[in-house]
Amino acid sequence: MPELFTVLTPTDALRKLFDHLRAAVPTETIDTASALKRVLAETPVAANPLPSFARSTMDGYAVRAADTYGATEALPAYLTVSGESPMGQAPSIEVGPGQAAIIHTGGMLPHGADAVVMIERTQKTTEREIEVMRSVAPGENVLQIGEDVKAGEPLLPIGHWLRPQDIGGLMAMGITRIKVAQRPRVGILATGDEVIVPQAEPQPGQVRDVNTYTISGLVEQAGGIPQPGGIIGDDFDRLLAAARTALNQADALVLSAGSSVSVRDMTSNVIDQLGQPGVLAHGVSIKPGKPTILAVCNGKPVFGLPGNPVSAMVVGDLFITPTVWKMQGCDRPPVQNRIKARLSHNVASVPGRVDYIQVKLIERDGEWWAEPVFGKSNLIFTLVKSDGMLIIPIDANGVQAGEIVEVKMF
Amino acid sequence: MPELFTVLTPTDALRKLFDHLRAAVPTETIDTASALKRVLAETPVAANPLPSFARSTMDGYAVRAADTYGATEALPAYLTVSGESPMGQAPSIEVGPGQAAIIHTGGMLPHGADAVVMIERTQKTTEREIEVMRSVAPGENVLQIGEDVKAGEPLLPIGHWLRPQDIGGLMAMGITRIKVAQRPRVGILATGDEVIVPQAEPQPGQVRDVNTYTISGLVEQAGGIPQPGGIIGDDFDRLLAAARTALNQADALVLSAGSSVSVRDMTSNVIDQLGQPGVLAHGVSIKPGKPTILAVCNGKPVFGLPGNPVSAMVVGDLFITPTVWKMQGCDRPPVQNRIKARLSHNVASVPGRVDYIQVKLIERDGEWWAEPVFGKSNLIFTLVKSDGMLIIPIDANGVQAGEIVEVKMF
Repeated sequence: MPELFTVLTPTDALRKLFDHLRAAVPTETIDTASALKRVLAETPVAANPLPSFARSTMDGYAVRAADTYGATEALPAYLTVSGESPMGQAPSIEVGPGQAAIIHTGGMLPHGADAVVMIERTQKTTEREIEVMRSVAPGENVLQIGEDVKAGEPLLPIGHWLRPQDIGGLMAMGITRIKVAQRPRVGILATGDEVIVPQAEPQPGQVRDVNTYTISGLVEQAGGIPQPGGIIGDDFDRLLAAARTALNQADALVLSAGSSVSVRDMTSNVIDQLGQPGVLAHGVSIKPGKPTILAVCNGKPVFGLPGNPVSAMVVGDLFITPTVWKMQGCDRPPVQNRIKARLSHNVASVPGRVDYIQVKLIERDGEWWAEPVFGKSNLIFTLVKSDGMLIIPIDANGVQAGEIVEVKMF
Repeated sequence: MPELFTVLTPTDALRKLFDHLRAAVPTETIDTASALKRVLAETPVAANPLPSFARSTMDGYAVRAADTYGATEALPAYLTVSGESPMGQAPSIEVGPGQAAIIHTGGMLPHGADAVVMIERTQKTTEREIEVMRSVAPGENVLQIGEDVKAGEPLLPIGHWLRPQDIGGLMAMGITRIKVAQRPRVGILATGDEVIVPQAEPQPGQVRDVNTYTISGLVEQAGGIPQPGGIIGDDFDRLLAAARTALNQADALVLSAGSSVSVRDMTSNVIDQLGQPGVLAHGVSIKPGKPTILAVCNGKPVFGLPGNPVSAMVVGDLFITPTVWKMQGCDRPPVQNRIKARLSHNVASVPGRVDYIQVKLIERDGEWWAEPVFGKSNLIFTLVKSDGMLIIPIDANGVQAGEIVEVKMF
């Protein structure tokens, strides 16, 4: 019976789950260029400094800074142009005392020069001579060797998920292959005598499978590989066999169970047969989603979700998403956007339970309003019509209309 | 010269670009199960109501509500159990006056019944009789036909990007194929005599290509297909030929130019040869990223990015990301997370320009602090070391240390 569940808070439940997980999934070495959103399984180290030569950050003239000291528009310094630093090559010329060399943004500083004067601060007097109208300090307008990265510097920590600039940074260092966590494979089984595949036409009493697809989407967003395993009827032996096979072929398993008490109990019993330690939490103090089962079987996470689609999404967001990241070794996954909005209606809650309220965001007089999308939690389209979730903390007993709330966006 | 640029504000520049874009990319019909993050090119409509039959939301007994009126614990109503509604089938039994049928969550309501009494509100007196200890109203604990979606209802608007619950909702309706915008192909060319492929060992004066990879990542995140076209030297004819080919094979083109004035001018001239109307903005009032070129050539967007990696990322985020979504017909793309944090140092800015400051987020005494990552904007690793960007609006002249700011997370 529901009242006998070991109900944990969401935070405690996730911690307990993580405590029993085995370490991250195996690693693989892949092309850095294809590693967007993948999680590092090694700390790449700079083999060389970046930049590897002193570079100009401006168009202008490479000079010896001392030659410009005291230069003003009224009293410019005169320098002889000794040549040009060509892009992409080491300049063959040197800059001696009283000399300057033409240089472009990104060009290599010639020997002898220690600063760059912007072209706007100079004037040509003859083909071979310029006036410098402002002094520059040594190093001015120059990127020094190793100013971006020093040789031997660790570039990114293990467990970091790779963003576009990280890929760019690794490529800048010539690190074109990288060791990352494999994408965790997540088996997904839908259960229920009433559930049919979406391709079929439901007969009276039948409904199409929804949760396989919402959970697949969440797994994919978290960097995992969803492995849908089909629909299993409400039969203990068949469910156990299917769950064993699915878990063997995956790194984690999600059972989207029916919502009736007998089916939930069956799911829990099946999970307990899959390996040690088995069920860790049977029930979490959230609404919707309370009858959630969290388990670890032989090091692999196993989730028993309530059958109704809104509960399944809430539980997926709260537990499956962070677990899929955690399995990759990532403790700081990308964060979903949160928006402050003014609540349009009173929303009741019960202390001791975290409430998820689906809301639509509406802009009114230049301000965001969060309007609860009412409807039973069995209705998938309440989620489709929502922009995000208002989360009411465990100790609150509701939120008043007009209060500013934080909405977690989908 | 930079001073002659037609400098637009970021908002005006993007609007001008969008005004000249041709409509969205072509559409394609794909499996709904594979359509996560794709953008709808049609409005799916409900062929049937959902649910298609009245369903119980509880474990209990299907009853005629009128039979329970006035029932209390002290004075229960007595009903005869006429049978059970099996999961996944139309029940063969009916519920007559004074009768009840066992029903499970998700089960179909038998003819005659109009409400469900939770099992917890009942007690078995004999094998065939129950006591009902609370009255229910007609419709109580029942999902009505069409309560989730009515037949003929439009399910989602054109231009909507598909989230996990949207995929689930479409599958619930049996919509297993869906028309979406094709993923826009974005050609990317790096230019510069000094730029080499990351696989090569740089000689003095050479640097590895970075922007091809950061821009590819941004394009991928926005649902596009990056088409890297290699590195072209600073030669007008070769760049024009490569740009023509790349744009022909793509829906948009990004030229990551060098940063010297002469190279920028070359890029601008190349872009003007690619089609009408050509360059729309040469320079945008942002820092870094001012020398950006925005163009539309024969309906396709073309971007000329400053060569330095930080500018390229800022411009990519400001212009390329929304454009790739817009090309798919999506005006409300996924929003990046924004976090409020307290600024650790004074940051200066110039009114009339939007400033992007890279920051690291640090938790101190339970509060987020935004710490600027100082360093020249040519340094890719300032971006790698940052968690997000502090955006200083166009009319501000700096932010004081200690102020609360909004950080746009990567």
